[in-house]
Amino acid sequence: MTELSEEQIEIYLAQVSGWTRNDQKSMQKIYRFKRFLDGVRFVTQVADVAERLNHHPSILIDYRIVTISLTTWDAAGLTDLDFTSAANYDAEYAVAEHQ
Amino acid sequence: MTELSEEQIEIYLAQVSGWTRNDQKSMQKIYRFKRFLDGVRFVTQVADVAERLNHHPSILIDYRIVTISLTTWDAAGLTDLDFTSAANYDAEYAVAEHQ
Repeated sequence: MTELSEEQIEIYLAQVSGWTRNDQKSMQKIYRFKRFLDGVRFVTQVADVAERLNHHPSILIDYRIVTISLTTWDAAGLTDLDFTSAANYDAEYAVAEHQ
Repeated sequence: MTELSEEQIEIYLAQVSGWTRNDQKSMQKIYRFKRFLDGVRFVTQVADVAERLNHHPSILIDYRIVTISLTTWDAAGLTDLDFTSAANYDAEYAVAEHQ
């Protein structure tokens, strides 16, 4: 898995919604929920995706706010796998109870 | 819910295992798991306790490490509710798959 170039990252970021870069090496998104347990349920779905892709994000649950951070340790930066993961999490959020 | 005194906090901390104070106002514990999904399952159990007590910790999942932080916002410090929560989480961890 090779680190993406700056140009590739900008193109990919334009294709996902709400993801922002923390720094050169990682990106994050804040997901909001109406109820605490809806956020927790979403986290279990993200975890299933993570296991399937064998790529594990950092997940912070702060009451009704879930913040997910992605990076690829092996590449010391962002890779295709991070954006594939992001798209999958967003798909789970789209069908999750959050309003 | 009233903020505990320094003396009370020290007594209570001596009765739980692995909890450390971040600062005057909060405390945290790092729970380790052999498998990522075991940590996630533990988080869902912690979440059920949190809903039952109506007291919600901050939860960070970093692969096989789950870090839980507790504080009581209303009291701007640590209260009985934080230590009741901690004891309940520890009880869940004791029966969780983590080795």
